[in-house]
Amino acid sequence: MIIGSKQSIRLHAHDNVAIALSDLSQGSNLTEFDVTLLGYVPRGHKVAIKEIAKGDNVVRYGQVIGQATQAIAIGEHVHVQNMGMGAHLQDYAFSKSSEPLPPISSPRTFNGFHRENGKVGTRNYVGILTSVNCAGSVARFIEEAANKSDFLKDYSNIDGIVPIVHSTGCGMSSQGEGYQTLHRTLMGYANNPNFGGILLVGLGCEVLQVSSLVDRQEPSAAFRYMSIQSEGGTRKTVEKGLQELHALASEANKATRKPAPVSQIMVGMQCGGSDGYSGITANPALGYASDLLVRHGGTTILSETSEVYGAEHLLTCRAVSEDVGKKLIDRIHWWEDYCARNGGEMDNNPSPGNKNGGLTTILEKSLGAVAKSGNSPLMDVYQFGETIDKKGFVFMDSPGFDPCSVTGQVASGANIIIFTTGRGSVSGYKPTPCIKLATNTEMYHRLQEDMDLNCGDIVTSGISIEEKGSELFELIIRIASGEETKSEALGYGGVEFVPWQIGAVM
Amino acid sequence: MIIGSKQSIRLHAHDNVAIALSDLSQGSNLTEFDVTLLGYVPRGHKVAIKEIAKGDNVVRYGQVIGQATQAIAIGEHVHVQNMGMGAHLQDYAFSKSSEPLPPISSPRTFNGFHRENGKVGTRNYVGILTSVNCAGSVARFIEEAANKSDFLKDYSNIDGIVPIVHSTGCGMSSQGEGYQTLHRTLMGYANNPNFGGILLVGLGCEVLQVSSLVDRQEPSAAFRYMSIQSEGGTRKTVEKGLQELHALASEANKATRKPAPVSQIMVGMQCGGSDGYSGITANPALGYASDLLVRHGGTTILSETSEVYGAEHLLTCRAVSEDVGKKLIDRIHWWEDYCARNGGEMDNNPSPGNKNGGLTTILEKSLGAVAKSGNSPLMDVYQFGETIDKKGFVFMDSPGFDPCSVTGQVASGANIIIFTTGRGSVSGYKPTPCIKLATNTEMYHRLQEDMDLNCGDIVTSGISIEEKGSELFELIIRIASGEETKSEALGYGGVEFVPWQIGAVM
Ligand SMILES: [Ca+2]
Ligand SMILES: [Ca+2]
Ligand SMILES: [Ca+2]
Ligand SMILES: [Ca+2]
Ligand SMILES: [Ca+2]
Repeated sequence: MIIGSKQSIRLHAHDNVAIALSDLSQGSNLTEFDVTLLGYVPRGHKVAIKEIAKGDNVVRYGQVIGQATQAIAIGEHVHVQNMGMGAHLQDYAFSKSSEPLPPISSPRTFNGFHRENGKVGTRNYVGILTSVNCAGSVARFIEEAANKSDFLKDYSNIDGIVPIVHSTGCGMSSQGEGYQTLHRTLMGYANNPNFGGILLVGLGCEVLQVSSLVDRQEPSAAFRYMSIQSEGGTRKTVEKGLQELHALASEANKATRKPAPVSQIMVGMQCGGSDGYSGITANPALGYASDLLVRHGGTTILSETSEVYGAEHLLTCRAVSEDVGKKLIDRIHWWEDYCARNGGEMDNNPSPGNKNGGLTTILEKSLGAVAKSGNSPLMDVYQFGETIDKKGFVFMDSPGFDPCSVTGQVASGANIIIFTTGRGSVSGYKPTPCIKLATNTEMYHRLQEDMDLNCGDIVTSGISIEEKGSELFELIIRIASGEETKSEALGYGGVEFVPWQIGAVM
Repeated sequence: MIIGSKQSIRLHAHDNVAIALSDLSQGSNLTEFDVTLLGYVPRGHKVAIKEIAKGDNVVRYGQVIGQATQAIAIGEHVHVQNMGMGAHLQDYAFSKSSEPLPPISSPRTFNGFHRENGKVGTRNYVGILTSVNCAGSVARFIEEAANKSDFLKDYSNIDGIVPIVHSTGCGMSSQGEGYQTLHRTLMGYANNPNFGGILLVGLGCEVLQVSSLVDRQEPSAAFRYMSIQSEGGTRKTVEKGLQELHALASEANKATRKPAPVSQIMVGMQCGGSDGYSGITANPALGYASDLLVRHGGTTILSETSEVYGAEHLLTCRAVSEDVGKKLIDRIHWWEDYCARNGGEMDNNPSPGNKNGGLTTILEKSLGAVAKSGNSPLMDVYQFGETIDKKGFVFMDSPGFDPCSVTGQVASGANIIIFTTGRGSVSGYKPTPCIKLATNTEMYHRLQEDMDLNCGDIVTSGISIEEKGSELFELIIRIASGEETKSEALGYGGVEFVPWQIGAVM
């Protein structure tokens, strides 16, 4: 049990409930809100800090999570006995809460790598992309040969060589969504601004042909390709690959960091190994930083569709248009079919355990995850790995599985990943740096060498969501400008490329 | 066009047809069979070398591929105009052709690593197995730390350290066949006799828990485990992992190669990047070697269910019992459902292109792949990665996708892989050595540094299937005794662990 400096926490300035940070007895005084408890409130449960009339909204994270089913007095425990989710909260209310946040005009910049297409990288890697698992070892051999020859000493502006290796690319149908998803993902990596050059390696006889990736990506000073079977086997491909890498690196090395507006930052938001603190510390702090970045003209991406399921109303009401809201609903329907045909089912309803923990409605439960996205309007909805071409807050469809979801975000163009974790996930996603936020102080101290920022002090030291979100915003700018994340320092990113494999393995 | 020393080839002593190795004109004399052609026979097509009465079986690979629909004279072209597949070839004929081959009692041995459970390894690796993708980088960091510290210099009997890294283990249902298949695969690797020790690494919060793998596998001198979240992050886990690795290596290093009967060899048979020669050179040569190994009491595994589809009759008739035959049919039905619910379909019927190439029936087409298994009775049918506990020729269900299918075979216990390839696949499957057979001489010369044996000389130099199969059998014994394969020398095996991912990624 973490003992904090506060007894409760309010997650957004508009909230009319606070969350108890420990079991609180009747008569306890929440000095921070000048509220005296009218009854016992268990840890994690809600207490009214404003009067709520019967039928009025209950607001948490600045968002409606239900309505009072009877009048609720200040200091009263708010839960199933006096709160519910009216039917109108279960309609999509497309675009009803999509007020743009006030833009911030003060020009903030970071130092990034400006690419020819106008995008800006936060890193300058040379990638060795593979069309199929069968080319993965050769991609790694080329990297090893480069490292052995002290390749990078002549290329001081390059951050490293990154083999992008995976488990698929053959034994699959050459049409349909499985193929299209993988194709989009590989094209997305080739085009991520954190790569200054790409060497594409195939085997030759695979379903996903190198030529299908080359059609839309002409060979250039920043893009080369080859196939092992054409080159004459492993050794010859590695030798030629090393030459190609030198050509790519000479070109990529010309790039240097130059000031760019923070609107060029695209953040993929992710949570993994969540705990009871995720929804009250790291996720809302990230939500605050997301709103700040959006107000500066930047882009933030929410994903993990399976964690929004059943509470998609949280996002449809924030959609800038009914069309955008309906794109999300289309994906939800796709997921229902996807799970059904795979013998699974999605169900995000608060379980008895969730209710014991203080979560009253499905909206409130999913808000723990959605809180990462703050309160900005939802500008568009994208497929997994689809190029994101809008500014502001957007949604990209993906599973909740961390490496897979992040892979889609990087393919969509993310040049920063922010990953909140309660249990302590350790991972990296080259070419994109990944900032780890600890949701609780105990884990932060235990895994300090892996965590970039402690959000547990929101509970343990009374830091406000706004302070923490602002701190994170500054950290984003420093990391985008080249400061190393913990996972980069440790060398992560060699095995975390996980394309979403959809469909039968044949 | 490869010019050979022969004009045609007979693939099995019992065959009544030979295959033209080039376009042959009327009047050509097949000196090897003393047959004069009665008409034009295109390359790859069949010519009768015995009289075949109307209704008699047409035999290729020693197996029935159809019947004469009219009398066929010696020297006549055999194809759709005079041959068909009677309805009775489309019933399962369970166990009708399951005569055991004559055992060979002359004791042949190889030098292997004898394990406590009585199994014998062909290699002596220490594995770093991972429960989830999120532990993959740490597994590789432990290997890198070991290599950096010149770890193996004290352990001269150990072949190396092998991180077993994959893309799944979380974001999946904790029940159902997807989970069970992965669990079986990981347990199978832990138990493969080519590992002298296993260090199992998990993250902590994954769906496939380390504890689920430990339940059935007590910690011992040969098995240790740990979780990153419990150990306190990356650096501490790597440090402890290195200590555990020393403990495992001390124990594993006690093993030395000692003579073992070849009946302890279990061969996973595989083809990838097939070409028009696969079915007339490397596959039947492998079939001959498979029969030799089975006659010596060893085990050979056919897989790649999607390539048998529609011609399962080829195997059901060889099943030792109706029960075994029905196990195969059950898997075929499972595959039909698997493909249907993923929007795909299986169809192995000879296409117009196949027919132009000389393939007359679905049995003949699939025999190109099934020829790898020779003529031995089918002793049992196993699920993907299921422990194989019978001697003789067996079937293990898998996709055709090479790295995935081989992963299942290694999990099932294979201590040798034999991989036939026409286009030139390059890959390795640590801990199990993989012998590459080239189906054609042109590719063999072009990719000689990757290919272990040329079977193309069956066409280009008139080597018989029997000679080539015997040569392969000797090579198997040498490789099993420690001779390095080409892919081992090149360092393959770091990325080819590909568990069969079944079901939705959540
Ligand atoms: Ca999650
Ligand atoms: Ca996640
Ligand atoms: Ca094949
Ligand atoms: Ca293949
Ligand atoms: Ca295959």
